[in-house]
Amino acid sequence: MRLSEVAALVAGQLEHGNAEAHIDTVNTLLLATSTQLAFLANTTYQQDALTSQAGVIIIGLAVMPELSRPVIRVQDPYLAYAQIQSHLQPQPKSQGLRAKSAIIHPEAELADDVDIADGVIIEAGVYIGEGSRIGAGCIIEKNAHLSSQCFLHPKVVICADSHLGKRVLIQAGAVIGSDGFGFAWSGQAFIKIPQVGRVVIEDDVEIGANTCIDRAALGETRIGYGVKIDNLVQIAHNVEIGAHSAIAGQAGFAGSSKIGKGCQFGGQSAVAGHLEISDGCSFAGKSGIMSNVDKAGQYSGYPAIPLRTWLRSSAIFSRLPKLWSTLISKKTS
Amino acid sequence: MRLSEVAALVAGQLEHGNAEAHIDTVNTLLLATSTQLAFLANTTYQQDALTSQAGVIIIGLAVMPELSRPVIRVQDPYLAYAQIQSHLQPQPKSQGLRAKSAIIHPEAELADDVDIADGVIIEAGVYIGEGSRIGAGCIIEKNAHLSSQCFLHPKVVICADSHLGKRVLIQAGAVIGSDGFGFAWSGQAFIKIPQVGRVVIEDDVEIGANTCIDRAALGETRIGYGVKIDNLVQIAHNVEIGAHSAIAGQAGFAGSSKIGKGCQFGGQSAVAGHLEISDGCSFAGKSGIMSNVDKAGQYSGYPAIPLRTWLRSSAIFSRLPKLWSTLISKKTS
Amino acid sequence: MRLSEVAALVAGQLEHGNAEAHIDTVNTLLLATSTQLAFLANTTYQQDALTSQAGVIIIGLAVMPELSRPVIRVQDPYLAYAQIQSHLQPQPKSQGLRAKSAIIHPEAELADDVDIADGVIIEAGVYIGEGSRIGAGCIIEKNAHLSSQCFLHPKVVICADSHLGKRVLIQAGAVIGSDGFGFAWSGQAFIKIPQVGRVVIEDDVEIGANTCIDRAALGETRIGYGVKIDNLVQIAHNVEIGAHSAIAGQAGFAGSSKIGKGCQFGGQSAVAGHLEISDGCSFAGKSGIMSNVDKAGQYSGYPAIPLRTWLRSSAIFSRLPKLWSTLISKKTS
Repeated sequence: MRLSEVAALVAGQLEHGNAEAHIDTVNTLLLATSTQLAFLANTTYQQDALTSQAGVIIIGLAVMPELSRPVIRVQDPYLAYAQIQSHLQPQPKSQGLRAKSAIIHPEAELADDVDIADGVIIEAGVYIGEGSRIGAGCIIEKNAHLSSQCFLHPKVVICADSHLGKRVLIQAGAVIGSDGFGFAWSGQAFIKIPQVGRVVIEDDVEIGANTCIDRAALGETRIGYGVKIDNLVQIAHNVEIGAHSAIAGQAGFAGSSKIGKGCQFGGQSAVAGHLEISDGCSFAGKSGIMSNVDKAGQYSGYPAIPLRTWLRSSAIFSRLPKLWSTLISKKTS
Repeated sequence: MRLSEVAALVAGQLEHGNAEAHIDTVNTLLLATSTQLAFLANTTYQQDALTSQAGVIIIGLAVMPELSRPVIRVQDPYLAYAQIQSHLQPQPKSQGLRAKSAIIHPEAELADDVDIADGVIIEAGVYIGEGSRIGAGCIIEKNAHLSSQCFLHPKVVICADSHLGKRVLIQAGAVIGSDGFGFAWSGQAFIKIPQVGRVVIEDDVEIGANTCIDRAALGETRIGYGVKIDNLVQIAHNVEIGAHSAIAGQAGFAGSSKIGKGCQFGGQSAVAGHLEISDGCSFAGKSGIMSNVDKAGQYSGYPAIPLRTWLRSSAIFSRLPKLWSTLISKKTS
Repeated sequence: MRLSEVAALVAGQLEHGNAEAHIDTVNTLLLATSTQLAFLANTTYQQDALTSQAGVIIIGLAVMPELSRPVIRVQDPYLAYAQIQSHLQPQPKSQGLRAKSAIIHPEAELADDVDIADGVIIEAGVYIGEGSRIGAGCIIEKNAHLSSQCFLHPKVVICADSHLGKRVLIQAGAVIGSDGFGFAWSGQAFIKIPQVGRVVIEDDVEIGANTCIDRAALGETRIGYGVKIDNLVQIAHNVEIGAHSAIAGQAGFAGSSKIGKGCQFGGQSAVAGHLEISDGCSFAGKSGIMSNVDKAGQYSGYPAIPLRTWLRSSAIFSRLPKLWSTLISKKTS
């Protein structure tokens, strides 16, 4: 790829570089060689930009203006990196490969070009749309529906009746459609409530490794359009996640909570049950949301409070011993 | 099912309804139609009871007494819902199906009516009792013992020597009997301590998707009668969980802790190692229990303190900046 | 094993015992019989040492000096227990067993003595070194490299290009090399950043059940020599964990953080992205590390602060209501 092509792809401006020079792959500032492209998106790594051997560096419009080496200046270097990397490393296309060891029920319906890897088990009533690829050892239970161009990594379990939209990408070991955690206490024991709802995953969702999404007790658990979910996340029955939300590793959502669009959840954050979270809320890692949030903004802490307040209160937390002793000494003086 | 039968099943009282009318399934207040039953157990959803199209609504004895539509009044609507749903959606019975692709060691012993799905691997010395169903891709290692009517969803791993009681239900991807996390520092490196104990799971336990329960270093890790465990929970070696306790998603228990009967753990709560927790303790989500708890009650926070104190202290936490500035201003005035 | 041999193995001193007496296995103080060895490493269990039926007890040099029963006194009883147990329960050796149901690509290269259990799938370009054992249902993707004497428990997934050193031990269900969580916001949607790096796991690492280690976006995610990782841990792309660190269950590491050598992380602790943690840091359970830590020591809390401060501040946290009311009453008086 010539530098002029790279610049065009990301609507960037080449500085100090030869438009005809080539790069073939992307690498980090530290590891990149003269035929590789690197990027600077996090100011933490500015020093590396000075010593990098990269053929060209993608960099922000106003960042390190004095840099007199080949750079392509763009509004958002991280986005440009994503665009270039997607261009250089396109997802492989399905080819209609069917491993002999796969067990496909005769009453399942698969588009002709679907790839099925070794050890896959597909039950009756399953539908898998064109361009989909099912990784080794995946299990797809009865009546599950996968729309076109889904890609399951190895050992994913799609439980009965689950519905996946287009281009859903699931990392290894995730479980979609396990029973929700529903029991009623009879006075002597817990009685299991049969979980008869399903999971619906809309288009362009990605789900991380070993993440669990429970089927609804009744109705649907729904993951909205374009949502991205990291590893080891727990999503309980009847939760709804609004479109374009992003959920980091080990976050958890208790039953029936409704999350707005464009929300972000840090690692190990959690939402209690039966809550409503407004569009555009962002929660720091380890936040614990215990009540409805009706205003977009940044939050942190447990219980979650506005981020700015939490930062100030947390700073004082470590000074509590001093505060305490000051107060006590004043009382006794 | 006639409304008179429903009312009899849950010892409830039909009001404003035709005892001969039928319902066939259960649904939410919002989605239920005239041949479906809905329930109101959480006051958050009272408004939905007014507009619901449900044929009948299960409702508390004193809730919305003015409601002039078909209702069945009961002491505990959530319990009634569980009872009705269990009646309408009974667990399927095993039929002695044996998938050809399953690999069953000749020295394993299976009751005649056990169902074995595709891709299952059962090693030597395993016993599986009558009425059990083993889901696709499960692996049951040497000398594991499953009592009658166990039900494993797909891809569960039961490691060697694990003992499961009757009616144990395990969701997809759970791992029972992995090695405990035990190492001793030699001065140069960690030395692994062979984990030679086992896991014992008593009758009527349910275990969530991708949950891990480690085998004991020595002796047993024991999950008591009727315990319910949600997804992605970590239970370390030699932990004991008392009967009828309930553990929500992503909770964790460090080694050798002994949990009493009837305890409840919120999502992402955690118990440090070598502790004893009394019967009847309830811990809010994200609690961190760092010392023995010898008194039943509600707790929260990290370190966990009585819930009421925690709620009051948390409310003040967000006012710490004000507290601080007030104190400082008084000092300097 | 004679008591004299046991004492020699752990460089301990036999007291009140017959050097010719035998023990055959190890058990807990409470369960051990006269032909079993027990150990006392945690003072919580001193009372059990008085009533134990064990043939001999491994005990600290200065602990319960009045104990007039067979004991072997050592510097570190827990280490001695590890050494004895490792001696009595050595890891089984591989024997070159190849299950018929395993699917091994002709372009994979396996040492002759490697054991491959049922249901294993090994793709093209994989290398597995001598003495390794691959448990039932494991999937090893293209070009993964396993050095000698690796041991994978059932259902582990090793994704493409991952590199494992010698004696790497992985518990059931772990996923090594899943895609990192990398997306750039285009203004309309998240664009996936292809994750083209790999995971490198150095020698003598152990990884817990259902733990996830993501491949690097670019370059490497690296787990250092001798690191021990518990169950359900999340390690994001480009993280580096220094040699001999230990990570307890459900801990999480966000992208690109660099952890020093000999660090310890309690259960459910977490490290934010792009941080550097110095050698020799120890973090209590549930810690949340939000900034670089450049000094060895013990830390706790969220944000993490020195453990001693955290303990004092936490003690005051529960007294905040009293502090508040005292202050308010002084203001109004």
